[in-house]
Amino acid sequence: MIVVLKDSATAENVQRVKDYIINKGAQVHESEGIEKKIIGIIGNKREMDKTALSAFPGVEQVISILEPYKLSSRKFHPKNTIIDVKGVLIGGTEPVHMAGPCSVESEAQIFEIAAEVAAKGGHILRGGVFKPRSSPYSFQGMGVEGAKWLYEAGKAHDLPVVSEVMEINDIETLYDYVDIFQVGARNMQHFKLLKALGKTDKPVLLKRGMSATLNEFLMSAEYILSEGNEKVILCERGIRTFVQHTRNTFDVNIVPALKNLSHLPILVDPSHATGKTELVSPITLAGLAAGADGFIIEVHPRPYEAFSDGDQSLDFDQYSQLLSDLNILREGILTLRKQKLEKVELECI
Amino acid sequence: MIVVLKDSATAENVQRVKDYIINKGAQVHESEGIEKKIIGIIGNKREMDKTALSAFPGVEQVISILEPYKLSSRKFHPKNTIIDVKGVLIGGTEPVHMAGPCSVESEAQIFEIAAEVAAKGGHILRGGVFKPRSSPYSFQGMGVEGAKWLYEAGKAHDLPVVSEVMEINDIETLYDYVDIFQVGARNMQHFKLLKALGKTDKPVLLKRGMSATLNEFLMSAEYILSEGNEKVILCERGIRTFVQHTRNTFDVNIVPALKNLSHLPILVDPSHATGKTELVSPITLAGLAAGADGFIIEVHPRPYEAFSDGDQSLDFDQYSQLLSDLNILREGILTLRKQKLEKVELECI
Amino acid sequence: MIVVLKDSATAENVQRVKDYIINKGAQVHESEGIEKKIIGIIGNKREMDKTALSAFPGVEQVISILEPYKLSSRKFHPKNTIIDVKGVLIGGTEPVHMAGPCSVESEAQIFEIAAEVAAKGGHILRGGVFKPRSSPYSFQGMGVEGAKWLYEAGKAHDLPVVSEVMEINDIETLYDYVDIFQVGARNMQHFKLLKALGKTDKPVLLKRGMSATLNEFLMSAEYILSEGNEKVILCERGIRTFVQHTRNTFDVNIVPALKNLSHLPILVDPSHATGKTELVSPITLAGLAAGADGFIIEVHPRPYEAFSDGDQSLDFDQYSQLLSDLNILREGILTLRKQKLEKVELECI
Amino acid sequence: MIVVLKDSATAENVQRVKDYIINKGAQVHESEGIEKKIIGIIGNKREMDKTALSAFPGVEQVISILEPYKLSSRKFHPKNTIIDVKGVLIGGTEPVHMAGPCSVESEAQIFEIAAEVAAKGGHILRGGVFKPRSSPYSFQGMGVEGAKWLYEAGKAHDLPVVSEVMEINDIETLYDYVDIFQVGARNMQHFKLLKALGKTDKPVLLKRGMSATLNEFLMSAEYILSEGNEKVILCERGIRTFVQHTRNTFDVNIVPALKNLSHLPILVDPSHATGKTELVSPITLAGLAAGADGFIIEVHPRPYEAFSDGDQSLDFDQYSQLLSDLNILREGILTLRKQKLEKVELECI
Repeated sequence: MIVVLKDSATAENVQRVKDYIINKGAQVHESEGIEKKIIGIIGNKREMDKTALSAFPGVEQVISILEPYKLSSRKFHPKNTIIDVKGVLIGGTEPVHMAGPCSVESEAQIFEIAAEVAAKGGHILRGGVFKPRSSPYSFQGMGVEGAKWLYEAGKAHDLPVVSEVMEINDIETLYDYVDIFQVGARNMQHFKLLKALGKTDKPVLLKRGMSATLNEFLMSAEYILSEGNEKVILCERGIRTFVQHTRNTFDVNIVPALKNLSHLPILVDPSHATGKTELVSPITLAGLAAGADGFIIEVHPRPYEAFSDGDQSLDFDQYSQLLSDLNILREGILTLRKQKLEKVELECI
Repeated sequence: MIVVLKDSATAENVQRVKDYIINKGAQVHESEGIEKKIIGIIGNKREMDKTALSAFPGVEQVISILEPYKLSSRKFHPKNTIIDVKGVLIGGTEPVHMAGPCSVESEAQIFEIAAEVAAKGGHILRGGVFKPRSSPYSFQGMGVEGAKWLYEAGKAHDLPVVSEVMEINDIETLYDYVDIFQVGARNMQHFKLLKALGKTDKPVLLKRGMSATLNEFLMSAEYILSEGNEKVILCERGIRTFVQHTRNTFDVNIVPALKNLSHLPILVDPSHATGKTELVSPITLAGLAAGADGFIIEVHPRPYEAFSDGDQSLDFDQYSQLLSDLNILREGILTLRKQKLEKVELECI
Repeated sequence: MIVVLKDSATAENVQRVKDYIINKGAQVHESEGIEKKIIGIIGNKREMDKTALSAFPGVEQVISILEPYKLSSRKFHPKNTIIDVKGVLIGGTEPVHMAGPCSVESEAQIFEIAAEVAAKGGHILRGGVFKPRSSPYSFQGMGVEGAKWLYEAGKAHDLPVVSEVMEINDIETLYDYVDIFQVGARNMQHFKLLKALGKTDKPVLLKRGMSATLNEFLMSAEYILSEGNEKVILCERGIRTFVQHTRNTFDVNIVPALKNLSHLPILVDPSHATGKTELVSPITLAGLAAGADGFIIEVHPRPYEAFSDGDQSLDFDQYSQLLSDLNILREGILTLRKQKLEKVELECI
Repeated sequence: MIVVLKDSATAENVQRVKDYIINKGAQVHESEGIEKKIIGIIGNKREMDKTALSAFPGVEQVISILEPYKLSSRKFHPKNTIIDVKGVLIGGTEPVHMAGPCSVESEAQIFEIAAEVAAKGGHILRGGVFKPRSSPYSFQGMGVEGAKWLYEAGKAHDLPVVSEVMEINDIETLYDYVDIFQVGARNMQHFKLLKALGKTDKPVLLKRGMSATLNEFLMSAEYILSEGNEKVILCERGIRTFVQHTRNTFDVNIVPALKNLSHLPILVDPSHATGKTELVSPITLAGLAAGADGFIIEVHPRPYEAFSDGDQSLDFDQYSQLLSDLNILREGILTLRKQKLEKVELECI
């Protein structure tokens, strides 16, 4: 951490900053340029409070040199994490294929979709039962009954299932029915929920918030990891920008950026990211080409009958087309992944 | 709501869309241009599902004409809402002045600040006891003990108090100690929390999420209102943009935009919005000049000792300077407010 | 185009709007809902002035149904445009590979790089001689002498060359030395320059502005096309968002979005988009997987000696690594491209 | 400037970075923390090339401590600049009031508006004759004939005039007719135009680009200043964000931020910033309350007949209402300005 002093900083100002740093158990390293004086902080800098330092009289700015996350960092955990969900490996050579409806709507609907996902070679079945909707007048999900149907549908086709928790109490409610807990973009900084998930033994699929920086995303992962749950799966689902040709702006760049910095697997969600069915296939391919460990998409037999997200759900023909496109790139992507995985150690949990 | 059809839409496609609309109890109104065919929907359009319609084969886009919110709309509730918090009127002629520390840190600290806020003519005392922090390693708040100190400090100086709830269970925990529940920016779309707050009888200070649109902001208010709690106070606290000269970008524009569309009071939070003490005073003035019903700021006797947000907290001298600047514009602002309030009916709750 | 009227619109207001529309030679189509009255405009709507209509008393908003661009639209020009630059086809089955330094620095430098690009199978040599730099104190380019070196280096290796024009007068200055004129992101809306380029007979590589919407991007292409020059090559080079893990945010989504709407070829520029050498390879792959017609990247034998953009230029080893990664996906990408190109007609110009 | 080294940096890597810095005439100051090694650069750091340093093997990041601008900086020019335009002082106690149509449309139109602006106490008449329009099919301005009308209309009412130049050649064309050259947001980084304006003797009104950072804005001013023209007037006109309730997002925060860092006057343009007539008055007040040196707004007798920007132009009644609102705050704003101006030295040019 580096403290840049104002031109107007007095000797007393500087001394107080130095005293503060030393009292916190770190060392100071001063450097005086022609225009600016700076103080370097040497020691366990992650514990130094940047905002407190910024508040000292005479301080112009405080610059962090170290990343703020630790458990999610490749530096402290060089081995790639591979998460085993009932035999499905997330982060291995084979990109994971998760699909299902936005919302579980009925027993028949989720069974119909589960059959299709299984037939198409999907690995994990998704389906929401507690739905965060921007309007209180919209469908809010089928609740625990929906979770039971989801569980049964997955079981019938040997597909582990993933569903969203919006609230601490949802964890217990859904515990018996889901294999992966999903945290939605709007809850990426619901810190008490993250802590509670850190105390469970199930994997957590953590979606990036729509205005989250890379650091904030990994710090949210850190909330889960720091409570003892190492099974965190990251997921890029689009950010909010000025762009209007897609619902959100799928930030493909975070995929390789995260791969460089973190050992955690990262998926892409082209359905939410683009909000447009015709873009789901090219964006899925782009995400995998950039190094994503898999994708999660919304499929529905009759999107116009869907209770939610019909406009971004693929129907079964579109789903087939996506898989056909993907199949064309498949061999290349597997080769690329193998080359990369050979260069690091792996840890399967 | 208007459905724009693709050039490639077949007669069958069009018929299905029309059947769907009519089945939902609305009427259709077709219009055929030279290049495009469109279907207008006439009826209770708020209940028509835009995403389902978008998913029909042959549909290019669906355009909403009506705003999605109702209870927060000036159209359905033309009288301005004034919220009475133990005699402090929020939304009246006098802009409300809320101040206090980011975090309650100790009994002595909150009493010292409460005395200062009261002496400076403040109306409401703020102080966090559950803190949403992006790092799990940062100070997380003093919890319920802090809330008790806050309550006592407010009581000692006749200041109602406001504090943040992060979680449904926090509502009950804090109920006896706070006069206004605050919902932080990160929780603006924590819908279950909003619903639970809609069932209490205390006012809710709802901060805008950092990537929330105006519609999303009012829809979150709608979650609270639709459960029966009419005491919603909106608060602009900065949005996330590419800009780096402020921590967030204070969107002063939403103040008059909301005043036109909604009857709810709106405050500004220049401390979080800018993240820089030297900008708090000019931005507070800007917010009030644009029509805000008050401001909420962070003050701390010794910001460099603060447990959180030291870099954006005013010390007592800076606080005095802000009030001195404000005093210069005060008469003008009161006159402007009176002129506007005379043009609408008021409802004090 | 649809005009939505305010609730407060009087009969006279409505009549004036209708008269205005009819006077412009279009027809009106009224529709009255329960809450809103709207007027549809039928006719040559592209020529109706949206902002004038918005300014009429009683008008709430005006909604465009039609895209504003015409010559760049696939609807009016269904055949894919393939641009032939001295035998290099841009928009054909083979993705085009453009590479070179940010700035031409010396004769030796550009010859060294040209040899490398040719040896690596590159198709087009890039190199700037007029450099838009945010600081007046930075290197501003070698000017016309650099252009001559670029031309000679390209000629020696049978590589057509592309270089940026910042100003109308630059067109004439560079005319004899370049095969493609580039318009940089900062000049995407330098409309007089675009018009002047529309009058030349050379292809124009038009980079997307860093805050340009898709419509604005195509409207800038329209400026060139409408003056008679049909050889416009679009290029995505990253947009400005809140994100800080990349210099800009590469918007991979615009690639398939543009492919759906326009017949023009679209390239990707991962060097400027990400500003980080380690992301150039995965982002190039992502762009091609999403359907881009090629890529343009910065390479330099010794990036730390580069006069500009050293931090985002690949050295020759990194360049080899990119091409090795690309080679792994190559067959799949060619197959995908062939499948898509078989579904449309092509027009080579 | 601070160079942060990668963990993997070799001794040779470090030596090369040090040699480079020393060869450029600066000194190095090394500091080794527990996790990171950094090199501070001491000397004339503005001339060190950040991107070249970033490109050295072993370098993780390069952090600038000093602002990149110099001539526009308050540090190097502590006196506030006041620009005298034919007796109108821009940057003095009285906020400057500029008004007029988006486009000069006819002699009669500009004379009618000039009379109104003069009658309302305006100081400067605005009017565009070369119009940057996103569509090539839109009205492009009346050209030099319009400039003559503007000049005559201003002269008739003792109002200096301001008009936009889009192109280097426009400077000569308009030289005899305008008192202030305006650079539009789209041209804020048209560096050759800025340089050419730096060689004239007339003031330049420089609008902030819609995705420009504060540093980029001042660096564009620096282009003009560094050629010898000291008369630069900055203008905030809204930035591009995800927000949709205004056309752009007026960034009121940059007003006090610039006042702290630069001696140049700064205006606000609420018409372009919001794109909505009903927001022009509150946003003008907000801008002035935050410290802006004046405002520039669009007025038109009949906005629905305007050739451009009708939707954001005030009609004469709305213009009166704005001035009436402003008048209420006027005394307070003058007092605030006087207090601030008393604390700095002034230089009128």
